[in-house]
Amino acid sequence: MTDTLIDTATYVDRSGTRHPLPDAAAEAQVRGDDRGHVFHSWSAQALIDPLPIAAGEGSTFWDYAGNAYLDFSSQLVNLNLGHQHPDLVAAIQEQAGRLATIQPSMASDVRGELARRIAEVAPGDLDKVFFTNGGADANEYAVRMARAVTGRRKVLSMYRSYHGGTATAISLTGDPRRWANEPSDGSVAHFLGPYPYRSSFHASNEAEETERALAHLEQVITLEGASTIAAIIIETVVGTNGVLVPPPGYLQGVRELADRYGIVYIADEVMVGFGRVGEWFAVNHFGVTPDLITFAKGVNSGYVPLGGVVISQRIAAHFDTVSFQGGLTYSGHPLACAAGVATFEVFERDGILERVRDLGTRVVEPRLRAMAERHPSVGEVRGLGLFWAIELVADAATRAPLVPFNASGADAAPMAAVAAACKQAGLWPFLHFNRMHVAPPLVITEDELVRGLDVIDEALDVADGYVAG
Amino acid sequence: MTDTLIDTATYVDRSGTRHPLPDAAAEAQVRGDDRGHVFHSWSAQALIDPLPIAAGEGSTFWDYAGNAYLDFSSQLVNLNLGHQHPDLVAAIQEQAGRLATIQPSMASDVRGELARRIAEVAPGDLDKVFFTNGGADANEYAVRMARAVTGRRKVLSMYRSYHGGTATAISLTGDPRRWANEPSDGSVAHFLGPYPYRSSFHASNEAEETERALAHLEQVITLEGASTIAAIIIETVVGTNGVLVPPPGYLQGVRELADRYGIVYIADEVMVGFGRVGEWFAVNHFGVTPDLITFAKGVNSGYVPLGGVVISQRIAAHFDTVSFQGGLTYSGHPLACAAGVATFEVFERDGILERVRDLGTRVVEPRLRAMAERHPSVGEVRGLGLFWAIELVADAATRAPLVPFNASGADAAPMAAVAAACKQAGLWPFLHFNRMHVAPPLVITEDELVRGLDVIDEALDVADGYVAG
Ligand SMILES: Cc1ncc(COP(=O)(O)O)c(C=O)c1O
Ligand SMILES: Cc1ncc(COP(=O)(O)O)c(C=O)c1O
Repeated sequence: MTDTLIDTATYVDRSGTRHPLPDAAAEAQVRGDDRGHVFHSWSAQALIDPLPIAAGEGSTFWDYAGNAYLDFSSQLVNLNLGHQHPDLVAAIQEQAGRLATIQPSMASDVRGELARRIAEVAPGDLDKVFFTNGGADANEYAVRMARAVTGRRKVLSMYRSYHGGTATAISLTGDPRRWANEPSDGSVAHFLGPYPYRSSFHASNEAEETERALAHLEQVITLEGASTIAAIIIETVVGTNGVLVPPPGYLQGVRELADRYGIVYIADEVMVGFGRVGEWFAVNHFGVTPDLITFAKGVNSGYVPLGGVVISQRIAAHFDTVSFQGGLTYSGHPLACAAGVATFEVFERDGILERVRDLGTRVVEPRLRAMAERHPSVGEVRGLGLFWAIELVADAATRAPLVPFNASGADAAPMAAVAAACKQAGLWPFLHFNRMHVAPPLVITEDELVRGLDVIDEALDVADGYVAG
Repeated sequence: MTDTLIDTATYVDRSGTRHPLPDAAAEAQVRGDDRGHVFHSWSAQALIDPLPIAAGEGSTFWDYAGNAYLDFSSQLVNLNLGHQHPDLVAAIQEQAGRLATIQPSMASDVRGELARRIAEVAPGDLDKVFFTNGGADANEYAVRMARAVTGRRKVLSMYRSYHGGTATAISLTGDPRRWANEPSDGSVAHFLGPYPYRSSFHASNEAEETERALAHLEQVITLEGASTIAAIIIETVVGTNGVLVPPPGYLQGVRELADRYGIVYIADEVMVGFGRVGEWFAVNHFGVTPDLITFAKGVNSGYVPLGGVVISQRIAAHFDTVSFQGGLTYSGHPLACAAGVATFEVFERDGILERVRDLGTRVVEPRLRAMAERHPSVGEVRGLGLFWAIELVADAATRAPLVPFNASGADAAPMAAVAAACKQAGLWPFLHFNRMHVAPPLVITEDELVRGLDVIDEALDVADGYVAG
């Protein structure tokens, strides 16, 4: 196992050629520059030790010591087409050589083409695109559109959600990253979403969970005042906070409530759009049409910063004669859009969506279900496409999580031990609270996928060691 | 004049080679995609007609009809090294082929190198860099740092300023783009900055303006409550809102007030950093050291979205053991950083800063002063480096602006006429309210610069026509 994943001081590109990695002096330089001058996100700067990365290829990246890591996190769940995809690289190189940038107020071929292609795969009448630099600003501007159109200000957002780091986006966020950034402007109210495994509604099956979660949402709408609510924003499949796949009927119910009360329904698909769950947009899987969809990450695998909002005709029409009051210097950046157009070409040519659905149901799901049988630490596995969660518990009967909510330091030791076991065996895992997520690049080979699942299966033995005897 | 700037259906790259431009069918496709699917910033969508751009080279770009425009706006004042600079293009192509992206929590050679190079040219003890995607998020996170460090919440910001489009950034903004985005979270108070030509303080010279503007700022600090104020944010030279160069002593005074009251001083250099005024950072020209500097645009000429915050040791140290609560998927994007490193190499090899200072004082300033003499519509010219404003008035004695504050439609007709005259003669101007700004790429040739100033000189005849007889 270890042998096939860890190599020494070389890496292999997609043609099979072996390349030398930079040497120790180069690594020292990278570490020195990083520790001396780079300030990192979401961290206490003296308590981190960022790993210098020398190369990446497909689903694998290499550190300077020559350790190879199979990336089951797709970086930050953005690297849908893997590292160094030749079509994306070529598209960027070609666009850079042709016209690297042009301001948003002008018309650009590649910007228009990407907007058209997104509109083609978006559901219903969503056919205009406002481009941003990433996911947070996409959500900022989606909320702004909803406010302008409705003349209302409040936004309802789920607990257990992440919507980004800028002011509006972090206020929407329903996880602990919001706490240090409060008070916000007081315009967001949080509600509870469906989560059958840990139902907030004392439901005993999915149908009941759907029904009760919708009743809860309607109650919050009533108590907050429908006439004050501009938008409801929901991650179509909740990402970082648990790969929470909505039970059948839930999103339809949200759509109906939004219609009934004149509220804009925003689907945040920053993490789950562009193939992660085997559809262009995850809402397509559920057969619902939101008013606005926000995206980023998978649109071009994060090769160049890009995000955006897909806009329904009804909402776009409001801004035909009323000015939209928002913008940014790099809206619809040509280099980023070129990588987006290439993404469409690769997805279509290589049948990426079909591949994700096939690997998800044929390889990942059965294997994870088998792990759930075998490991007492696995409370539940759930997911869709190439997006899965393994929820770890200290006690299968009580469903007590393996580590407390938002654990850090010693409290989080069991999860840290599982992570260490994965890395030791050459797999880079995605961990959050008491969960491990499975989110590899969508181009991962079946062999690599099985190898990675083998590593996880073994690492779960470590988690089992913490289960109440 | 027109002949040398306007060509037909071809463009010329930097080697002198003439290339064909795309044909009418291609233009129709671009227009169709754009009007059908691209939602534009700061606009009523049905009232705009975005010009399709086919090519760019150095200081010139071409539309599909073959019209060449000399870009005196550097796109959105970001294209400091002009279109298609071979070193930036090569750096992007090389990095794309090597490792297009890696997540922020890892160490990357090119990210560390850019951070180190920025630290080397930043003033004082500013030596860590938090990278963002653009200017707005840089300001968002700078304010967040100031709040965490001081334990205070309020921010003072100038009227006549622009700080970006996301929630915190637009609330800091002191121009009409904020209006439609209010109420904000109530944590920003605006104060008046120095503006000798239209003194808010009834000052009759620069020294008096400095003294009184500082007294005003101190009064606002007192009345808002020093103990409630986390930060003061100032564009070192106010950009879009007027190329307002602070009079001698003003920024030193701000620094002293910030120190006296324990307030973090944030310099927004998104528009004026990286050479625009002939210095790496504009504060270097004024000899002051803020606590935080925000940047974007010029750091890599906007070839790849990038922004950031340069952080003093004192502020960075606060986050050694306390977690910084902010982040974004594309922080320190390798492709963007590679273009940033190349920017440093070009600036140093080609003496860009020296060039800007020379062209500014030797070519631009005397010519603009001559225009001010010749044209009754010119109330004042002011600027620094390759960043100048021509303030147009209807009456030189009363200084009544040529068009009202925030004019649009028919009210703005005189400025629209000036703009049309410029475009007709092959120059793409930057206009805001009653001003034209001169902000060409820093690599503009002396010939091009003179040619562009000739066009402006002629276009001002149009403005003169509106001057009260
Ligand atoms: C669902 C969701 N929304 C928004 C964001 C924010 O995106 P960005 O980091 O590009 O601002 C993320 C990032 O992880 C996300 O997962
Ligand atoms: C001074 C200043 N700050 C901030 C910004 C916002 O930058 P961005 O558009 O990249 O968000 C701008 C943009 O023009 C600016 O000029």
